[in-house]
Amino acid sequence: MTPSPFPPAKFQTFTEKADPSHVAPRVAALRTAMAEAGVDAFLVPRADAHRGESVPASEARLAYISGFTGSAGLAVVGRDRADLIVDNRYTLQAPAQTDTSIFTVHEVNGANVDIRAFVPKGARVAYDRWLHTPGGLRDLADKLKGHATLVPVDNLIDSIWTDRPAPPVSAIEFLGHNRAGRTASDKIADIQGRLSATGADATVLTLPESICWLLNMRGHDVPNTPFVLSFAVVTATGLPTLYLAAAKITPELRQALSGVAEIDDVANLPAALTALGNGAKAVQIDPDTAPSAIAEALAEAGARLIEQRDPVLLPKSRKNEAELAGMREAHKLDGVALAKFLAWFDTEAPKGELTEIGIVTALEAFRREEETCVDASFDTISGAGPNGAIVHYRVTEKTDRRLNPGEIMLVDSGAQYLSGTTDITRTLSTGPATAEQKDRYTRVLKGMIAISQARFPKGTTGAQIDILARQFLWQDGISYSHGTGHGVGAYLGVHEGPIGIAPRYTSPLEAGNVISNEPGYYKAGEYGIRIENLVVVREAPAFPGYLEFETITLAPIDTRLIDTALLTAGERDWLNQFHAQVWAEIGPRVSGDVKTWLQQATAAI
Amino acid sequence: MTPSPFPPAKFQTFTEKADPSHVAPRVAALRTAMAEAGVDAFLVPRADAHRGESVPASEARLAYISGFTGSAGLAVVGRDRADLIVDNRYTLQAPAQTDTSIFTVHEVNGANVDIRAFVPKGARVAYDRWLHTPGGLRDLADKLKGHATLVPVDNLIDSIWTDRPAPPVSAIEFLGHNRAGRTASDKIADIQGRLSATGADATVLTLPESICWLLNMRGHDVPNTPFVLSFAVVTATGLPTLYLAAAKITPELRQALSGVAEIDDVANLPAALTALGNGAKAVQIDPDTAPSAIAEALAEAGARLIEQRDPVLLPKSRKNEAELAGMREAHKLDGVALAKFLAWFDTEAPKGELTEIGIVTALEAFRREEETCVDASFDTISGAGPNGAIVHYRVTEKTDRRLNPGEIMLVDSGAQYLSGTTDITRTLSTGPATAEQKDRYTRVLKGMIAISQARFPKGTTGAQIDILARQFLWQDGISYSHGTGHGVGAYLGVHEGPIGIAPRYTSPLEAGNVISNEPGYYKAGEYGIRIENLVVVREAPAFPGYLEFETITLAPIDTRLIDTALLTAGERDWLNQFHAQVWAEIGPRVSGDVKTWLQQATAAI
Repeated sequence: MTPSPFPPAKFQTFTEKADPSHVAPRVAALRTAMAEAGVDAFLVPRADAHRGESVPASEARLAYISGFTGSAGLAVVGRDRADLIVDNRYTLQAPAQTDTSIFTVHEVNGANVDIRAFVPKGARVAYDRWLHTPGGLRDLADKLKGHATLVPVDNLIDSIWTDRPAPPVSAIEFLGHNRAGRTASDKIADIQGRLSATGADATVLTLPESICWLLNMRGHDVPNTPFVLSFAVVTATGLPTLYLAAAKITPELRQALSGVAEIDDVANLPAALTALGNGAKAVQIDPDTAPSAIAEALAEAGARLIEQRDPVLLPKSRKNEAELAGMREAHKLDGVALAKFLAWFDTEAPKGELTEIGIVTALEAFRREEETCVDASFDTISGAGPNGAIVHYRVTEKTDRRLNPGEIMLVDSGAQYLSGTTDITRTLSTGPATAEQKDRYTRVLKGMIAISQARFPKGTTGAQIDILARQFLWQDGISYSHGTGHGVGAYLGVHEGPIGIAPRYTSPLEAGNVISNEPGYYKAGEYGIRIENLVVVREAPAFPGYLEFETITLAPIDTRLIDTALLTAGERDWLNQFHAQVWAEIGPRVSGDVKTWLQQATAAI
Repeated sequence: MTPSPFPPAKFQTFTEKADPSHVAPRVAALRTAMAEAGVDAFLVPRADAHRGESVPASEARLAYISGFTGSAGLAVVGRDRADLIVDNRYTLQAPAQTDTSIFTVHEVNGANVDIRAFVPKGARVAYDRWLHTPGGLRDLADKLKGHATLVPVDNLIDSIWTDRPAPPVSAIEFLGHNRAGRTASDKIADIQGRLSATGADATVLTLPESICWLLNMRGHDVPNTPFVLSFAVVTATGLPTLYLAAAKITPELRQALSGVAEIDDVANLPAALTALGNGAKAVQIDPDTAPSAIAEALAEAGARLIEQRDPVLLPKSRKNEAELAGMREAHKLDGVALAKFLAWFDTEAPKGELTEIGIVTALEAFRREEETCVDASFDTISGAGPNGAIVHYRVTEKTDRRLNPGEIMLVDSGAQYLSGTTDITRTLSTGPATAEQKDRYTRVLKGMIAISQARFPKGTTGAQIDILARQFLWQDGISYSHGTGHGVGAYLGVHEGPIGIAPRYTSPLEAGNVISNEPGYYKAGEYGIRIENLVVVREAPAFPGYLEFETITLAPIDTRLIDTALLTAGERDWLNQFHAQVWAEIGPRVSGDVKTWLQQATAAI
């Protein structure tokens, strides 16, 4: 394969850094530590105390013990056996990365892990309270009931990890009012009002997305998402306190948060929790996201715990006008990069030399031409032909595949601009498609258009509208196994709750929500199709009490894969109008061959 | 208005039998009884111990004390005040029927009654344990917390109701295997398996629909639904015991249930509950339908209560082939009656002499021409012009309205045939309609067709598909305030859970379910539109794992109100195919003018 003409990727890597030879000695050392602690098994989840999709190197304990670097998984290391449980995204990667003479790899989806199968009767199963939530532990305890006992311990990996990296200390920036649209003090007052409503005297925030939103603060502690890893205690009155690594506490930080929040060393958090609890305060915690260590420290000190969803999540999901302006601007910048990329792709793909990695590198390079692009918002899913059918495929040097003309190419990518976060999927033609492929592509597109055109009364949930995206596939007895849409942050996480489009999203959609609209279809071993735009929920101007979507993604949808006979006049109108808008917004920002290409790609059908 | 040419209605009455003069002395007598019992208020719900939509005269306590005869409501009689709480169906009827110098009437929808507002601080609020469920009482107790106390008493109405009618003793019939499709013993074994799965030693069935289904038994204890009012104790092994009024226990009944169920006098039920509880048995009860008296008797005797939905409801909702054959046959019989009625309507309406009552009487008469029609399945909703916009309108002599040519007529009706239960709504043209009326009618029809054509994977709930019926109305910022569909029994209740089409129906739809498909639109003061067919859930032949609907209603949909420009080709095809089927099935069963009318009414558009 020819080398990519683009500079090497800065954001995304393609190696798996797997060295299975470390696994045996590390597991042996862990077993010695387990024996000293008097426990029979130790749980190593792929999690830190902040439950992000990315963890810093200092928290990559699952990779340390097993070699497996995927973004989800659990190792259960026992005295005589060791099991690595991963979901179907990692069926190939996990065995390739670990030492399979030590770890048995199991494919289990989601929360369906049958933990009983991996620990012997009567076992003492140890875990680190910082890496499990109260809800997660209750679920584990239910599953182990009558079989084994859960025992909290200081993390046993940490006790053997002699060359553990230091925690991240990245620069912290604060958003100006033009970007945040609300002062931190205003947001804090909002959260304090919510605490009063549940009768809570305080809450402990543990999700970086919540704390970063609350304080209009961003950092670079983990890849893909501008997080500052930290905790915060928000009391019903007075200033909240931000707890972070001592090295992050600079005079500039103190200055920036002066009058807004107190700042303290995260090492003082346990004492602060005890002090909160000693006052017999009612403290709200989120049982599904807060570390159990925090809930237990509060309860042991005398606090009355109120279990409620993190109070920041809902207000954060309602983007204000400044945030929405930033998101729209980010999508214009991204639309320029996509136009360049798609034009390039149409020139290069017929030559038969493109590879999945080359495509990622090119797209990243086009995005990096915009200097306010600071990161990818996630690793690009670049699936050529049959690899497109692997829903969460992430190309590596080992799996990299050449794109043969005639194959369908699926590219799901996004970027973090200083103005906002993007997430877009396009499915691209490289030559004549089969009637089946066009039929599937068109049904997916019809579903995406149905969501785009939906109008619904206030109070409607994402669970209710999900079927609009699936109905045309269901008519032919097919579907897709992922949600239709997820919430997206404003220069924050590309996945954020609590709103989205899928049966599990039972919170009402509200004006200001930004969500993805991404139905798909996957034929294993052959091809994958997904079409994704981001949409903003807004009040429907002419219909009081009703909401609708504004599409903010600005890149052409490949019309060569459409079976136009399957489109209604209304669907065709929507597509032509969408393309006219892409041309109007992006046309003036590109030139030369790209402009020529864009004009043709956005022509009415 | 001219008298109806039809015999007087046998099933439906149009008088409200209101005599407000009884209210004052009865409330005075109740207050004396309250004082003797040492309580400050007494709750009189419109309910009996079986939670049916109809109650026998002996259980009509709310009507006795207030004069109000509606099908839902609650009286709260205090020492110094008396309140009658009804939903918006009865905003006009309740004040007309009660003595408003005694009762203050409040319109409150559903479970939103703020009971605190009606009883003074510190009050002892008395209730009859047979008329409230554990779930309902917990809700009441929550609302009264810190304000008033709930006190169970023997029913205070019964103590003053000197001329109380005797409980109903109607003939009991048993369904042959050709109608029931499953033996009672087979059904009992099914329920016993379900009890074992929840670890229950027994359950107490209190819903007549469950007991009648289980024992393949039908009766006539209440109007509209062929219920035998009774209780049943089903143990995990051995024969269940049926408890009913001593007068119902005949040699024929004993013979019919020999080897299937034991039979006992309902007067012995309390002792039986105590005996069950004394064994410290685990007893399953449904907290939302069982009388609290039963739960408490069991718990007081030592039983461990397992709160679970009535185990009969799900299997009952999956109609077997015999039941479905009966339902299809009932819809052919009903289709004949509807064809006669609609042909008659089209002749008579232009004369301007029809009244709402006349229309009910005519429809009932056409249905009664079929000798296996034993009852209406509910009081016909006959709404002319603006009365059509009152969703649960029930015409009385006082409200009866002449149908003026040009007005829209809404007729929602159903019948109990020995073969099955029907429920159908048609909205009828009587002259030129406005563009708005046609637009609304067509959007409602498009929604009904979308449900009719839906195909969906197993596991899909009625909550998920509800939006298909609403989407076209929502596009124009309008909707309807009722569910899209409810379950329908097989020669049982016209409303039955736990499946249906609305956000509250979170049980998966399953093959054999029979549900209504009835979107609507209501413009207050002007007109109402609703189009309703019944559908059966069935396996989609060509699509493994997918379900679809079979429409079993066989009566023309008025095409004169359609704006055909709003229909897609697929929708038009569905309508033409539906009408072709109506013609094929009903055409051979009618003759003369009716046949001529039907041919034209089912012609393709």
